Amino acid sequence: MAVSRKIVLCQRPVEMFTDACFEVIETPVPEPGEGEAVVKIEYFSLDPAMRGWVRDERSYLPPIELGAVMRSGAAGRVIASKNPSLPVGAGVMGMLGWQEYALIGGNTGAMANALPEGVDLVDALSIFGSTGITAYFGLLDIGQPKEGETIVVSGAAGGVGSIVGQIGKIVGCRVVGIAGTKEKCSWVVDELGFDACIDYRTENVVDALGDACPNGIDVYFDNVGGDILDAALGHMNDFGRIVACGMISRYNDAEPGPGPCNITNVVKRRLRMQGFIVIDYLGRFAEAAMQLAVWAAEGKLKNRVQVVDGFLSAPTAVNMLFTGENTGKLVVKL
Amino acid sequence: MAVSRKIVLCQRPVEMFTDACFEVIETPVPEPGEGEAVVKIEYFSLDPAMRGWVRDERSYLPPIELGAVMRSGAAGRVIASKNPSLPVGAGVMGMLGWQEYALIGGNTGAMANALPEGVDLVDALSIFGSTGITAYFGLLDIGQPKEGETIVVSGAAGGVGSIVGQIGKIVGCRVVGIAGTKEKCSWVVDELGFDACIDYRTENVVDALGDACPNGIDVYFDNVGGDILDAALGHMNDFGRIVACGMISRYNDAEPGPGPCNITNVVKRRLRMQGFIVIDYLGRFAEAAMQLAVWAAEGKLKNRVQVVDGFLSAPTAVNMLFTGENTGKLVVKL
Repeated sequence: MAVSRKIVLCQRPVEMFTDACFEVIETPVPEPGEGEAVVKIEYFSLDPAMRGWVRDERSYLPPIELGAVMRSGAAGRVIASKNPSLPVGAGVMGMLGWQEYALIGGNTGAMANALPEGVDLVDALSIFGSTGITAYFGLLDIGQPKEGETIVVSGAAGGVGSIVGQIGKIVGCRVVGIAGTKEKCSWVVDELGFDACIDYRTENVVDALGDACPNGIDVYFDNVGGDILDAALGHMNDFGRIVACGMISRYNDAEPGPGPCNITNVVKRRLRMQGFIVIDYLGRFAEAAMQLAVWAAEGKLKNRVQVVDGFLSAPTAVNMLFTGENTGKLVVKL
Repeated sequence: MAVSRKIVLCQRPVEMFTDACFEVIETPVPEPGEGEAVVKIEYFSLDPAMRGWVRDERSYLPPIELGAVMRSGAAGRVIASKNPSLPVGAGVMGMLGWQEYALIGGNTGAMANALPEGVDLVDALSIFGSTGITAYFGLLDIGQPKEGETIVVSGAAGGVGSIVGQIGKIVGCRVVGIAGTKEKCSWVVDELGFDACIDYRTENVVDALGDACPNGIDVYFDNVGGDILDAALGHMNDFGRIVACGMISRYNDAEPGPGPCNITNVVKRRLRMQGFIVIDYLGRFAEAAMQLAVWAAEGKLKNRVQVVDGFLSAPTAVNMLFTGENTGKLVVKL
């Protein structure tokens, strides 16, 4: 009998994910029923949001239950099918979880889409997937940047942030990144075309933002929250927009820390701070994916993916997002 | 020579306003030049925003300079005029400052408007003035309440809050107030028609909001910031709106205190938190004033004004806004 390993959540983390949070179980590789297909997963997407999904509290998705397969974006190919629209060999992307094989289609309820022929599975998980689409709608729809404005993006060398900054340049803005090493800063400036990048580990972010944004900040795309959000709040222009995409600096806190002192600027400077989750844009994914594909084909958008090898490395690799060890989009190759 | 007293700012407050912040000077009552008119002021408007105007920092208006007349909304009547559109006897409202007489029109640059005949000066300063207009645009334009939704308003017994709640009822929402005494709570429920009101000084606001808002909060109209903003953030529904109108609990802080822990809910629940200042709506004041006048005439909107007597009482009376001693709109009668 062919075996499909699954990584299930067996204990909720208090701060970072630990080995004790997960258990590997073995199940038979599923057989497709009528309308179903079996996907052999080749890549997992690792995303900061996963830390939120394991919290036992109300959020935009129900918490992952103890004993359930760890929720995760993933991509693979159909290896057996009783569904003509999911032929053997087709690429598939979806919320397939940390497992080697997934059953999709029919009445499985699995959130998965077949990919157009020729689309690379890693691209589908990163630049054309929820990472790129988050950057696209977050910046353009929530942030509403106008040509000539100044955009600041934190987590600038991460999956979402690196795309946000490139889109900001495409639409004619000054783009300043904030990242956690000299190498990351050099990468976003030299390779991605950001105008400047601040190393938050060695620079005073408040002062550095003042220097890098002589005309103030019009759009702050926040991936991190905490002190950096506070620093950005201090430099916002009147009627500025804060895209509240993520607050990764807070995700591993056992108890929530204090919020930003400069929140009074929301009133004084008439700021709009708005949260969003990419799944709210499900009905418009095609619009974003097409535009991102065009920009990528034109060479305006570069995609960097950091690949960690091995199914069993997922539980450890996910913490790289929180320690800042990844540059670009982080995936696991099975 | 007739004398016009002026209260000028001579020292910036560290926390509350103190007597040492102000000085009374005497100047001649001005004579109108061509195109000008002289207004004898009858009422000052006292507003929480005044605490911000004396801070020496960037905001939506330049800081009041030391030695300048204290900026304030005020209303009075023209007593001498060389401007046919500002005839003697006409009511005038504007940013006329803490002084007994003001020169307006011509090239004075004074922000002032003649009032339609028959409009009461106190109404002009409160329900039909920036207080009512703040409530109107803040709730309807920024908050975007839909029929059947739940609105929570802090500072519910204050000038703005008491009108916000009544407009909320007019547009068909459940309205829950937060105020600082049992009497204020009774007033907004029994007299103004709020559905419930929480006394933040004696109740646990987090628990009480849960009880009073069984379907969560859709619109939180924030006049106070601080812990109450944090409590409201904890009860917001997905896609909820926070109208950041004021953060009075913070205005007297020498150093900014911490922000709300629950700010991470902005992401998780896709909240929109948006600041605004009523002067941004200057071009639409007439729309609001007309609608407010209609509602008041129909008996749907009640106006309560607390009047403190005497020109010299202004510097002390303004602190009543911060200690919570006023109910309804606070004005000084000269």
